[in-house]
Parts: sequence; C-alpha cells; structure tokens
Amino acid sequence: MARELRAITATETGRPLGPAPQVGTPASMRALNQRLVLQRLRDHGEATRPQIAGDTGLSKPTVGQALLDLEQYGLVRAAGHSLSGPGRAAVVYRAAPEAGHVAGVDIGRRSIRVAVADLDGSIVARLDEPNRCRSAGALVRTVSEAVSRTVAAAGLAPGDVVATVVGTPGIPDARTGTVHRAPNLPGWERKGLLHELADELGAHGSQLVVENDANLCAVGEHALGAALGVDVLVCLTVGTGIGMGVLVDGRLFRGAHGAAGEIADLPVGSGGARAKRPGPMEDAAAAHAVVAHARELGVGKARTAKDVFRLAREGDPLARQVVEAEAVHLAHVVAAVTAVLDPGLIVLGGGIGGNADLLAEPMRRTLAATTPFAAEIIAGQLGSEAVLAGAITTALGTARELVFDRREPRRA
Amino acid sequence: MARELRAITATETGRPLGPAPQVGTPASMRALNQRLVLQRLRDHGEATRPQIAGDTGLSKPTVGQALLDLEQYGLVRAAGHSLSGPGRAAVVYRAAPEAGHVAGVDIGRRSIRVAVADLDGSIVARLDEPNRCRSAGALVRTVSEAVSRTVAAAGLAPGDVVATVVGTPGIPDARTGTVHRAPNLPGWERKGLLHELADELGAHGSQLVVENDANLCAVGEHALGAALGVDVLVCLTVGTGIGMGVLVDGRLFRGAHGAAGEIADLPVGSGGARAKRPGPMEDAAAAHAVVAHARELGVGKARTAKDVFRLAREGDPLARQVVEAEAVHLAHVVAAVTAVLDPGLIVLGGGIGGNADLLAEPMRRTLAATTPFAAEIIAGQLGSEAVLAGAITTALGTARELVFDRREPRRA
Repeated sequence: MARELRAITATETGRPLGPAPQVGTPASMRALNQRLVLQRLRDHGEATRPQIAGDTGLSKPTVGQALLDLEQYGLVRAAGHSLSGPGRAAVVYRAAPEAGHVAGVDIGRRSIRVAVADLDGSIVARLDEPNRCRSAGALVRTVSEAVSRTVAAAGLAPGDVVATVVGTPGIPDARTGTVHRAPNLPGWERKGLLHELADELGAHGSQLVVENDANLCAVGEHALGAALGVDVLVCLTVGTGIGMGVLVDGRLFRGAHGAAGEIADLPVGSGGARAKRPGPMEDAAAAHAVVAHARELGVGKARTAKDVFRLAREGDPLARQVVEAEAVHLAHVVAAVTAVLDPGLIVLGGGIGGNADLLAEPMRRTLAATTPFAAEIIAGQLGSEAVLAGAITTALGTARELVFDRREPRRA
Repeated sequence: MARELRAITATETGRPLGPAPQVGTPASMRALNQRLVLQRLRDHGEATRPQIAGDTGLSKPTVGQALLDLEQYGLVRAAGHSLSGPGRAAVVYRAAPEAGHVAGVDIGRRSIRVAVADLDGSIVARLDEPNRCRSAGALVRTVSEAVSRTVAAAGLAPGDVVATVVGTPGIPDARTGTVHRAPNLPGWERKGLLHELADELGAHGSQLVVENDANLCAVGEHALGAALGVDVLVCLTVGTGIGMGVLVDGRLFRGAHGAAGEIADLPVGSGGARAKRPGPMEDAAAAHAVVAHARELGVGKARTAKDVFRLAREGDPLARQVVEAEAVHLAHVVAAVTAVLDPGLIVLGGGIGGNADLLAEPMRRTLAATTPFAAEIIAGQLGSEAVLAGAITTALGTARELVFDRREPRRA
C-alpha cells in the first residue's frame, strides 16, 4: 500500500508539527517545559541549568526536571562542565545530535546526490553518483539504494533516519502522487510515481517529503548560503532546466497549485538576441540552448555549457556573445519576477546560474533599462550543494519535532 | 511639522497594533477580557452574556464585568433583549458602531471618491467629485476639502475620524514622503508630498495611511467582493494606468521596495498583436492605448475606451479586434504573474478590467496555449468602489484597535 505523502507544512520555519500541547494539566505543562528547554539548547547552543533558567524564564528546579526528562529520552546530554562563575563547576548541557538523523536527496538529470545528517545538521555521510537511469522505475530503485548505502556508510540502521526530503525537477503533486512537468527525467511524470518513491524511501518509517529542487535551492541559500536573513528572496536556477524558488517572509511560497516559480513557460519576450519567435523560456535559456547557440556561432571547442563559460572567461569573443545573449534571457525572467514580486535579492544557482561572475553584470545592465526596482543579483554560495542543503534544512525541521513527539524513556 | 507617516502594519488582518497586553496583572487581565469580549461581538455579531461566555470560555461574571467596562467606554451597548430561552429575557449586546469612524479616499486621474464609515463598516456618507486639479498642491487641498465635506455631511466632527486610508496610483514611500511612479497625476511625484497630505488629512488626529490603489482594490475584493476567502490572489487593474495588487495568505504583499505588482514596466512580449517593439506594458495596454488602437483601425465613433467596449459589445468587428488585442496583452501579464506566483484567482478591475465579460474569454484562450496552471479569471464585484472598499477595510482594522487602545470612561 502506498504510504501517506504530504506537502511540507512550514517545517523549515521550526513551527511544531504535532498538535499544540494543551495548557493546564501537569503532564502537558511538563511537556511544554521540556520543549522550551530543548528549543533553547537547539537554537542557542549548549548551556548550564542557570543559563537555561535565565533564558527561558523557567525556575531552576523546573529546568532541572526538564533536563532530567530530556536526558531520559536521549534528547539532551551533558557536554562537560562550566568553569566560569563561583562555586562548583556547573554541568553544561546540549541537545543530543544523535537523537535522530535525516536524509536529503537531490535528483538531477545527470547525478544523484545524497547526504545524511544528524540533528545538529552535521553531515555524517555523503554520496554522489551519476544518473544513468533510463526509466522512472530504475531511478526510484537507484535513489533508494543510494540512500541505503549512505545510511549504512554513516554506521546507522535504516530506522535511524527520521525524515527524508527529496528534491526533484518539476512539481510534486501529493494529491495525485504524480510529478508534473519534469520532462528531463524519463518517465518521471508517470502517475503514482511519488507513491513508489514513498514505498521505497519510507520503508523504514522515515517521513518523506518530495519538493521541487529550485524551491530547496532557495531554502538552502536562505538557511546557510547567500541569502541569510533576506525576507523576500528568489532563487533562479539554470542548468539542464530552468526553475525558480520563491521565499516570502522567509518561508517557501508555492502558489495555489504548487507552480509558483515555474518560469520554464515564461514567454521569451522580444528583448533577447536569439528570440526570433515567442517560445518557452526553458527552450531559450537552459543548457542545451546555450550549447546550440554556441554551435550556431561556431564556438569550436564548446561541447557543453560549461565549456562555453570557460571559453568566455578566457576571452573568446564568440563565447562571450553567447553568454551575453543568455544574460539577456535571464534578465527578461528577472524583469517579470521584479514586476510581480519585487524581491529583495536574486540568487543565481544551477550549472549555468553558477556563472554569476559572467552573467550578473550584463543582466544588471539589461534590467537597468527597464525597471528602477531591480534587486541585487548575486551568486549562490552553496553551488551544486544548494538543493541538498535545502533538503537537509527542511528535513531537520520535521525531524526535530518528530523525535520530541515520539520521545520515550530509553531502556537502561 | 510633518506628521508621522507609517506603512500599513498588517492592520487588515485584524492583528493588534498596540503593545501586547502583559499577562498576569489584574489590570492587564481585565483589559485582555475586554478585548476578547469586544472581539467576539465584532466578529460574530450581537450576543447575550451567556452566549459570550460560551464562545470565549470566560466565566459569566467576568463577561459581565467586561461588558460593564466596555459600556462605560462607549465601545459596547445594549441592543435589545433576547426572547429565547427560559427565565427573564437576557440583554443582547453589540459592539457600538458609533465608537469611532473612518474615512477612505480613492484618488484617481479623473475623479476623487470619499467614503466615511462607522466601526461596523457601514458607509454613513459618500462623495464623488471630478479631479480637475493641475497641480499636486491643488489636489491635496481638493482631497482634504472633499474629506471635510463628507465628514460634515455625516453629521460628524473632524475629530471623530479615527483612521483615514488614501488610495493613490504609484508607490507611496513613507521613508521619503514621496509617491513614486505616478505620472498620470501632475506633480504627484514631488518630494515630501505625503507629508503635505498628512498635514492636511491628519490635522484632527486621524491616523493616515497612503496605499497603492491596486493594492486596496485587491484588499477590497478579498474582504467584500469577488475574492472572499481566496488565499493567493491577484487583482489586475486596468484603466488610465495599469496596476496589480497581490495578496499572499490573504494579506497584502508589497515586496522588498513596495513595488510588487508594478507591472506597468513589464516587457510587452512578442505575443501581442500590436507589439511591434518591446515597450512598457502600460503604454500598450492602458486606456489611451485602447483608444489609439481603435483610431488606428478606424473605429469611428470611439472617443473613449468605454466607447470601444460598448461598440464591441454591440458587435462592431473592428472594436472587437481592439478588445481581442487588449486581451492578448493582459494575457501576457497574467502569464508572467502565473509563472512567478501561481495565484488561485485573478480578479479584473479598473475601467477597462471591468469589461471582463469581453476580456476574460480571449485571455483564457491565449493563456491556455502557454501555461497549464492559469488561474480562473473573473470580474471584480465592486467595480469602481473597489479601491474605496479596500481603503475602508484597511482603516477599520486600524480604527478598531485605536478606539480600544484609547478607551476611557465617558463623562456622565
């Protein structure tokens, strides 16, 4: 039977997923205090009992009881002793990173990346492998095996992974179990695919969330990369395909049908050098178009988009022309995004977007002619790790709640 | 001295504006109970003491005390007696609509509209007058006089207006006191204009908020019109100019520089019949462009955009051609909005947008060719009252908080 799929429910903001604790009964008060103490340790690092009391407003005995409980559950442990202050050295506590683990997966046209992290977000195992799959079934199996191998390499049992987040091109539709608009992965749009993935990856009880890869890229750059603390953020990813992740108030914005940022279909407009006819933006601006344009101009040694950007960086005038045309296309995307959303920052990601050193300046020039409100355009800081970083960030939000909700005393 | 200007702080969501009441002291508990009881009466209408107790979870004596206090402040009054239930008839209480009033203003190129409403949102006076002003100074004075006359017509003193919200074309920038990008109003972009407006309209202590008109249109249609309960909503207003209001999670979304929805500059694209060169969308799709196109085609009797739509409705083939071309332009806007935001609903407003009966169908046809995610396109229900409705809705949110925060016992 297919496992339950769900959309991400704002887990990356750290809001509790479980039912809100009822206030008023001693048991629920106790749970509330435990949650407060654990949150304090996770958000601001290790601390002594008096420090926790000071930060949370709880009394020292209450903090002491909560710490005792959390230690019993394996969610908190002593990390050493504080030497500062008068009297005997106080015990320093920390949230236990080993209380649960998460897996992040980035399914790309060319490669599959997997990371396993502990509850601190520290990567404990990492795997990259080429994607040579020619069918959806093969890809599901390959992904599942890659995750299993990564979990094993970390010295963990499959059941230790509490939450798994998978990034994929296209629009995962939890209702129908289907990924829409992922033409670059053979068979990936077939009906019920998400259920197959859930059966494989959720086999050991891990919560599974499947999310658009550009969305995870935005989450990753916001949490750990170039867009720390930016409220309205757009992450434009250009590579095999073209995609966009949007954060509003620091949270992922998906739109009414999960299709926010699906800019592949954006009309190309009349500003682009290569736009002879109206057509989808992906056809005009993704990697294959860059290569095709380079061939058309006779950039001899360019077999891949990477080659084109390398040659442009070396000063090849024809390669530079291709890059300039690409920048005009991307400026057109940014113009539309700016008119609609007025983002505070635009982060470029993906194999092509990663060449922000060459693209950003001509993009800015093109934009300056059309809008006074263009946001800053910068390179992502996480490169090819951005989607994975977003997946791990998202999975951590879920996992930290789950390990608390499922807490029970450890066997002696 | 210029009065303080402020951006709207989510008042339309009903969040308290004042400092959060401190829990724990008897005085603050009492205020909290008053707030709870008043909120209950405002949100769900009149009720008896036991009904309020049942809905709020407060005890009947506590509700009784809060009602007594609120009556003293003039914020609640008895509205009659309930005849249902056993025993003697219970007093029915309601929030006092006369505890404060608000003013809404819609400054348009052709007319100035003013409404004054009580705290229930009932319009108690309404004024329309043509905008013949040739300078910003004249327009500020005209608006101020129009508001004064409307307030007087309602039998109110100027000080009775607690909050005023003004809708204007362009982007009001509270930081510099300037309205950006309002070329259709002579002199309106001059520096410090918002301070002049604040000096005039805030003279009697009314809180003043100046907001983009398309934004207020979206708020109005969401609160009272075609988009009740829709979470991600775009209101596309087309008339003398072209604008767009965006609601995300039911709240106004302004972007990083207040320029979200500033689609006047959107490239026209290559899909439009009249787009011979790239150019700003406003030049291509606002009222004057419709008239110019009609002239170009020789639609004889069309002097205004209204004429063009009337003729099209009567079956004039050339007028229909103009309307079709306009629909293609607007479809281009919607395509960009859909790719970026994926809204759940698109509401057409403004003098031209109001012709959704003619525009929506060709827009849908054009969109179907480019995106599978096009939202439903519908006519606004509030017509030329939409901006005013949004202004009153916004002002009510502020005013309801202010009258509570400023409460004091009435003199006997």
